[in-house]
Amino acid sequence: MQVAVATPGITAEAAAAACAAAVARAVSKGWRINVAVVDRGGNLMAFLRQPGAYIHSIDIAIDKAYTAASFGFPTRAWMGAIGHDDGMKLGFSSQPRLIVFGGGLPIPGTAGEGGEWIAGIGVSGASESEDEECARAGLAAIGLA
Amino acid sequence: MQVAVATPGITAEAAAAACAAAVARAVSKGWRINVAVVDRGGNLMAFLRQPGAYIHSIDIAIDKAYTAASFGFPTRAWMGAIGHDDGMKLGFSSQPRLIVFGGGLPIPGTAGEGGEWIAGIGVSGASESEDEECARAGLAAIGLA
Amino acid sequence: MQVAVATPGITAEAAAAACAAAVARAVSKGWRINVAVVDRGGNLMAFLRQPGAYIHSIDIAIDKAYTAASFGFPTRAWMGAIGHDDGMKLGFSSQPRLIVFGGGLPIPGTAGEGGEWIAGIGVSGASESEDEECARAGLAAIGLA
Amino acid sequence: MQVAVATPGITAEAAAAACAAAVARAVSKGWRINVAVVDRGGNLMAFLRQPGAYIHSIDIAIDKAYTAASFGFPTRAWMGAIGHDDGMKLGFSSQPRLIVFGGGLPIPGTAGEGGEWIAGIGVSGASESEDEECARAGLAAIGLA
Repeated sequence: MQVAVATPGITAEAAAAACAAAVARAVSKGWRINVAVVDRGGNLMAFLRQPGAYIHSIDIAIDKAYTAASFGFPTRAWMGAIGHDDGMKLGFSSQPRLIVFGGGLPIPGTAGEGGEWIAGIGVSGASESEDEECARAGLAAIGLA
Repeated sequence: MQVAVATPGITAEAAAAACAAAVARAVSKGWRINVAVVDRGGNLMAFLRQPGAYIHSIDIAIDKAYTAASFGFPTRAWMGAIGHDDGMKLGFSSQPRLIVFGGGLPIPGTAGEGGEWIAGIGVSGASESEDEECARAGLAAIGLA
Repeated sequence: MQVAVATPGITAEAAAAACAAAVARAVSKGWRINVAVVDRGGNLMAFLRQPGAYIHSIDIAIDKAYTAASFGFPTRAWMGAIGHDDGMKLGFSSQPRLIVFGGGLPIPGTAGEGGEWIAGIGVSGASESEDEECARAGLAAIGLA
Repeated sequence: MQVAVATPGITAEAAAAACAAAVARAVSKGWRINVAVVDRGGNLMAFLRQPGAYIHSIDIAIDKAYTAASFGFPTRAWMGAIGHDDGMKLGFSSQPRLIVFGGGLPIPGTAGEGGEWIAGIGVSGASESEDEECARAGLAAIGLA
């Protein structure tokens, strides 16, 4: 019987680099954001916040990363997936830590992880599309855009 | 590398004066309210409650102040901002400590703070418009109406 | 009446650099840590975690930073301060988010902040003294050792 | 059958005045405190905080007021009351919202309340004796020292 299994993860170095790049993009655009990277276990790997970024958005950024790490697709896709069904819409949107609007992206693995995503990144503080632009800048900084 | 950064805050004297003025307005109108002032870090600076004001509204007042201190615009503006987008509407309305109806106002700074808001004030216990009238009376008492 | 007051804070750049340096120290010693920087308002500014670092220690690191940011002295000093007094010892040790053992340090300001501390850094994952060594490495990296 | 009963309470005006006087005492001594008044129902009536006062002490002040409002004696008396009994000591000190060290005082009523206390005041941010000195200044300001 096989007992142990390798699960995909992200290094501290890459998680920090992704957060720094997301903030750099926000600085260059005049936005103020919170950014988080969460691993496949849902645990925080890295976080960075600009002074004055919305304090509600601390947890929203972490939960966008959590949502993307959990399901492996962008958080912006939730409403499209459940938008036809009011029950699903209400049910999912009230789930703790599940964010159903944009700004969270899965962090894809490379060949070694067999195509699995390895973590999630979430940004909150600007608009949905601006948040996601910052998240994509984070992915680009670690060669995964 | 720049390490320290100055962030805006509110004095205890001003926070107490704003709460007292909000309650005075409620007394003059026959309403019973809770009023809170929260700083930019989300921490309570001042609070005042009339005997018999709704006990649920203690936390609602604090969270209206928290929401206004976090985002820098009146809490009544939330539904207008997100009303066109079911995902945003559902997502934001279930966020802890985020109040999406009226009664919370940011407390603006003065020239020295570079236009940044310095805190938030929240009132709960009467109707939305009455709550906001009390909050505005609080701002007027500290010269920020 | 004075309404606004300037309060001290820390930049995102410095917060991230302190976390990266704390992790670099842990890597060089073969330890695995979580490190957090929290501002004076108690809000998370930066966080970094090595894969495999204890998951309980995510919140312990954040709360050590929170405790140091709140009180302005090293978390290791708590038992010395309250050790003579059973009431204080029992009372303080059961306070939420208050960590009464080592690994958290205040981040001092510079001349412009009038001697005030500007944030707190907390490390958890190794021993108390190892955690604090990593926290000091974080301060050194931003010129505040 | 008698159904209704009058319970003792405190006015918003008195609660605010007590908080303001406690802060005034702290300012005159160079301390930084949080002060709270809680009614007999355990609900917050007034709160005031100096900028830079310990953020942990926000809840400690409120809980000292809650403890004094609950039991009707000074919070400093807890260790004397239970200090001979390790079981009681541990049991009580881990009760949520019960603070077993000084800084909380009951607010006595006047003749009309039949000798009952009407609320509690709690101060946190300085030493136990300094906190209680501020609380007493609060009582003095409303004619109840």
